[in-house]
Amino acid sequence: MKPLPLAARAGEIAPFRVMEILARAKALEAAGRDVIHLEIGEPDFATPAPIVEAGVRALRDGHTHYTGALGLIELREAIAAFHATRWNAPVDAARVIVTPGASGALLLALGLLAGPDDEVLMADPGYPCNRHFARFCEARTVSVPVDAATGFQLTRDLVAAYATPATRAVLVASPSNPTGTVMPFDELARIRDWCAERRIALIVDEIYLALTYDGGEHSAAVWDDVFVVNSFSKYFLMTGWRLGWLVAPAWAMPALERLAQNLFLAAPTPAQHAARAAFKPGTLALLEARKAELRQRRDYLLPALRGLGFAIPVAPQGAFYLYADCSRFDADSQSLADRLLAQAGVAVTPGLDFGAHRAAQHLRIAYTQPLARLNEAVDRLKRFVQA
Amino acid sequence: MKPLPLAARAGEIAPFRVMEILARAKALEAAGRDVIHLEIGEPDFATPAPIVEAGVRALRDGHTHYTGALGLIELREAIAAFHATRWNAPVDAARVIVTPGASGALLLALGLLAGPDDEVLMADPGYPCNRHFARFCEARTVSVPVDAATGFQLTRDLVAAYATPATRAVLVASPSNPTGTVMPFDELARIRDWCAERRIALIVDEIYLALTYDGGEHSAAVWDDVFVVNSFSKYFLMTGWRLGWLVAPAWAMPALERLAQNLFLAAPTPAQHAARAAFKPGTLALLEARKAELRQRRDYLLPALRGLGFAIPVAPQGAFYLYADCSRFDADSQSLADRLLAQAGVAVTPGLDFGAHRAAQHLRIAYTQPLARLNEAVDRLKRFVQA
Repeated sequence: MKPLPLAARAGEIAPFRVMEILARAKALEAAGRDVIHLEIGEPDFATPAPIVEAGVRALRDGHTHYTGALGLIELREAIAAFHATRWNAPVDAARVIVTPGASGALLLALGLLAGPDDEVLMADPGYPCNRHFARFCEARTVSVPVDAATGFQLTRDLVAAYATPATRAVLVASPSNPTGTVMPFDELARIRDWCAERRIALIVDEIYLALTYDGGEHSAAVWDDVFVVNSFSKYFLMTGWRLGWLVAPAWAMPALERLAQNLFLAAPTPAQHAARAAFKPGTLALLEARKAELRQRRDYLLPALRGLGFAIPVAPQGAFYLYADCSRFDADSQSLADRLLAQAGVAVTPGLDFGAHRAAQHLRIAYTQPLARLNEAVDRLKRFVQA
Repeated sequence: MKPLPLAARAGEIAPFRVMEILARAKALEAAGRDVIHLEIGEPDFATPAPIVEAGVRALRDGHTHYTGALGLIELREAIAAFHATRWNAPVDAARVIVTPGASGALLLALGLLAGPDDEVLMADPGYPCNRHFARFCEARTVSVPVDAATGFQLTRDLVAAYATPATRAVLVASPSNPTGTVMPFDELARIRDWCAERRIALIVDEIYLALTYDGGEHSAAVWDDVFVVNSFSKYFLMTGWRLGWLVAPAWAMPALERLAQNLFLAAPTPAQHAARAAFKPGTLALLEARKAELRQRRDYLLPALRGLGFAIPVAPQGAFYLYADCSRFDADSQSLADRLLAQAGVAVTPGLDFGAHRAAQHLRIAYTQPLARLNEAVDRLKRFVQA
C-alpha cells in the first residue's frame, strides 16, 4: 500500500536512538547475553509502597471517572504546598495544572505560546522531545550550542545573542538531561529578568530539581510570570503512571484549561489520587533514601569514568546522567555505543539523541542501575578501552 | 501582570460549554438543590471489578515503569483479537498503537496527516475536540453541515462536495457524538473508496461502536488503509484511566511511533495492564449487561422526549446521547439549557459545543443516569414545558 501524503512534521520528528539501542540490548539478552542498562532515562526503583497503596485504594473506591481538566484540587493544593515547603516558592493552587506527565505540561506550554514563525530558544544538548514539541506546534526551535564553559546551560548572554524578534519562549532545563548540570540561580534570575523586559515567555523544566545532590534546589516558581514544568516520574518514581504538573502565570490559566480539555480531557485519575500520597512525610523519607542512593552512584561513577579517559569537565549536580566526551575512543559516539553494546554488554545513549552540537563526541550514561552493576559496567568498560 | 503574546491557536480553541453548565450545577448542588446530570459524556457505571482488580495486581506487581511507545504487546494483541472476534475485522497487532485515551489517538493521527494549509473534513455537529486537534496542528477544519436527511452523518456526496485539493483527511464518527446516529456501512464503504482513489486519509472514530444497540457493529478496520480510533472509556467504562487505541495502516506505524515517543512517551502502564482484563469473557458479560441497561434508557427516553415536543427525527442507534431540536421551547438552546438547569434542575449541553450548524436549535441529552433519574428528569421537563 502506498503511503499517503504526510504533514511535513512527520518527516522531521526523529526517533530516539536510545530505543534502537534498547531493542538491540533486549535481543542480546534474549540470546542469553548479560547487558547492563545505562541507556534508559528511568529510575530502576519501584514506586514507593505508600503511593502504590493509595493507588490501590483509589481503584477500589471507584475513583476511575474523569477529573476536571486542571486536575484534582486536593492534588493541586498538595503540589502548591510542596513548592512552598521544599523550595520556599509558594504558589497559588489555582496556578497549578496537573498533566499527563511533564510531556503534557510541555505540550500545553508550547501549544499556548508558540505557533508558525515563532521561535523557541533551548540548549543543545537538551531533552530531544522539547524541540519536537515545538516542531509539532509548527514553531521553530533555535538550538543554542552550549558546552562546559557555561556548565552546558544557557546564559543570559547566550539568550540575548540568539534571540530574534520572532522569539516567543526560552526553555531552560535544570538540572539538565543529558548533562545533569544545574544553572546557577543568579543566572536564571538574569534570564528571567531579560525575558520579562522583552515579554518573552520563560519555561523552566524542573523535573530533576528535587534530584539535585549538592544542595541548592532553586525553583523558578519564585517568580509568578514563569512557566514551571515538573513531574512525578523522576524524584517521585512514578514514570509509568504518567503524571506531571505545570505552574503557570495566572493570566494563562483559562487558555491552558481550554487546551487541556481538548488535548487530554484530564490526567489519569487513579494516578492523581495515588500521587497525593507522594507528599506524605513517610513517602518523602523513602524518596530521600532513594535520592541518597543515586548520589552515591554518581559519586562512584563520575571519578571512575574520568579515570578511564572519558572527559566529564563539569561535575553533574543532579538528575541521574553523566554526559561524557568519548572522542578519545571513537570519533563517532553512535559507533562507540554500538561497539560498547556488542562487545562489552554495556548499553549507553549516543549524543545524537540530544541535539547536533558535538553530539558525535558524547555519550549519555544513566546511573539507573545499582552500585554493583555500575561496578561491573566500569570493569567491562575498562577491559574494552584497554583492549 | 500583563499577558504575553500567545499563539493564534490559543484564542481559537473554545471552552466546552458543558463545563460551565457542570460548574453551575455543582454550585446549585452545594447550595442544596438536586440536579439531574444529563450533560456529561461519561457513563455513570464504575469500571468493572475484574478490570479494577487487574489494575490492583499490576500496581502491586510493580508494573509502574514506562512501556514502549506503542504499548504492551499483550494488550495490542488482545485489541487485535477483539477486532477479529467482535467485528470480524482482523488486524495485525503490529498495526495497533495503545494511546492515552482516544484523545491521544486523534492527536497522533491528525499530527501525522495534517499541517498548515491542509484541510480536514468533518461533520457539524460533531465532537468538538476534533476541530481543535486539527487547529492545534495548524490545519483547517472544514465543517460539513449535516442534518436528519443524512442521519447527521457525512455521505460520499457531501465529502465530494466539500473536498478541495487541500483536503488531507476525512473524519467520520459512528455512532456520532452528539447525535448517537450511525453511518450505514455501505455509505462508509463509498467514502472509503472515494478517499482511497484520491489518496486522502480516512479517520474513523469508533469509540461508541461497541455501544451500537440495534445490531450491525461494522468496524472500518476491515480496510487496512483506514485510521481507526477507539477507546477504553465508553464501552469498557474506563474513562479516568485514559486509555485508547489507534489502528493504522502499516506504512504509518514508524512515523506514529516517533510521534508517540515524543508527545506522550507511552500510555499509562497500570491502565494498560488493567485493560488486558477487559477482554475476558466474564468482563465482557458484565459490559454487555451495562450496554443492555443503556439501551433500556434510550428506549425509555427517546419516546418520552418526543412526547414532550422535542424533535428527534433520527432514532439514535448508539452511544448514550440524544440530540434534540428544542426550538419549539426557545430560539436559543444555550438560554434554554440555562433555564432548564436553574428552573428544572436538569443539566443538559447546548448545541454550541458541537459546532455552528443549527446549534442554537439543539441540546444534547446524555442518558448517563439510572432509569429512575431519567424518569424524574422527564417529570421535571414536563412541568417545565407546561409551565
